[in-house]
Amino acid sequence: MDKDKRILDVCLTPALIENFDTDDTIMVIIDVVRASSTICTAFYYGADEIIPVADKEKALSYKQEGYLIAGERNGEKLEGFDMGNSPFEFMSPDLEAKKIAITTTNGTQNIEKVSKHLGKNSEIVIGAFVNHKVLLNYLRNAGKNILLVCSGWKGNVSIEDTIFAGKLIEDLNRFNQYNYSSDAANHARLIYNQAKEDIFGFIMDQSMRFRDKISLLGNDIRYCLKEDATNAIPVLVEGKFINKQEAAGN
Amino acid sequence: MDKDKRILDVCLTPALIENFDTDDTIMVIIDVVRASSTICTAFYYGADEIIPVADKEKALSYKQEGYLIAGERNGEKLEGFDMGNSPFEFMSPDLEAKKIAITTTNGTQNIEKVSKHLGKNSEIVIGAFVNHKVLLNYLRNAGKNILLVCSGWKGNVSIEDTIFAGKLIEDLNRFNQYNYSSDAANHARLIYNQAKEDIFGFIMDQSMRFRDKISLLGNDIRYCLKEDATNAIPVLVEGKFINKQEAAGN
Repeated sequence: MDKDKRILDVCLTPALIENFDTDDTIMVIIDVVRASSTICTAFYYGADEIIPVADKEKALSYKQEGYLIAGERNGEKLEGFDMGNSPFEFMSPDLEAKKIAITTTNGTQNIEKVSKHLGKNSEIVIGAFVNHKVLLNYLRNAGKNILLVCSGWKGNVSIEDTIFAGKLIEDLNRFNQYNYSSDAANHARLIYNQAKEDIFGFIMDQSMRFRDKISLLGNDIRYCLKEDATNAIPVLVEGKFINKQEAAGN
Repeated sequence: MDKDKRILDVCLTPALIENFDTDDTIMVIIDVVRASSTICTAFYYGADEIIPVADKEKALSYKQEGYLIAGERNGEKLEGFDMGNSPFEFMSPDLEAKKIAITTTNGTQNIEKVSKHLGKNSEIVIGAFVNHKVLLNYLRNAGKNILLVCSGWKGNVSIEDTIFAGKLIEDLNRFNQYNYSSDAANHARLIYNQAKEDIFGFIMDQSMRFRDKISLLGNDIRYCLKEDATNAIPVLVEGKFINKQEAAGN
């Protein structure tokens, strides 16, 4: 192992986060379908800040403070919320300069869990196919260790998050700045390499979770796999995501 | 999903065991390199019972009770123990009718963790390449759900255990008696299918853990990947493994 290189590793589900040293590390939270993709999309359409909230009631309370509120459980939009968790609901000029509070079945609860394990001199950023290119630049310029944290599904692994983690490993590996040697990193890389020719088809073939919800989620999944549909870099600052890409004027 | 079929799933590391319902389930503990392979080998050479012990001092205390004691930490045999964790140390007529207490870096501690999560009407059995064929028969005849529990490495996943879990899924799938639909099960199956032509070469190529220890562990790893080198079915009964295959006179 080359000691001068940064460490690149994968946490296949937040339930395994305690295994990792997260000092001097950018933790990339990956919830491809759909929280990561939706948050990037909201920033791309001009949102000012996004607060991830694990609890439904707490998310509702932000309504009184002038926030748009987005809520989803088990794929369905929650009663009384402005939006669910479909990225298409966030593609609107109405989002310009708005503050949003969002709660989802899996993604926002994982953000809370992972943020409790944030190390010194570290940062949490959102990663998805839809911000892939700007994310790669951001990660390279940061010059820190990188931990790709897959949100997984109900405490376990998920195929789509593992695939995207594997893609980031392959892409970052080209720059020769990182060591990845863990078995988890290799799991992700190996699965990505089998999926990469047709990721939508692969996911549908492998995952009963998605086959069962194709009519509800099919268009969302297709969008969530679209590379570089946004240029957002959502970074968690004091419990809120802000868009660092936007701040830099890019 | 066919409701008449049994559930077949994979726990990629014991750290994820809480995710699973383990009632009416055979839990197969997989620690290919080396605890699972070594335990099968000890029974094949006639051992009468094997007590897995997480703690080193407790393992030593069994010496006074007439047990052979086997102890390993980080690949090395422990001072004062009769054997380490190399399966070759267990290939001896001296094992005939002996009781053995064993403690290893990773495997025996995981057995303790997993056995605390044993459900109703359930059982823990040891699985490895070296008992693959008899294990398949045993699992099919049991008519229960199957949870393949990979021991992994230091709380995270390990490539060799994932590969063997994937192999069992492919083999069990031929009998059309099981549903496997989890993303974890697919992770294992996908990685096995990339590795199956040359598992030793694949592991060496993928895992720095093993490349670094090839001089110490190379022969052990080759043996641990040898299918059907034994006919042992180690089953945990009241904290001790006994050999069910032997008891059945097969």
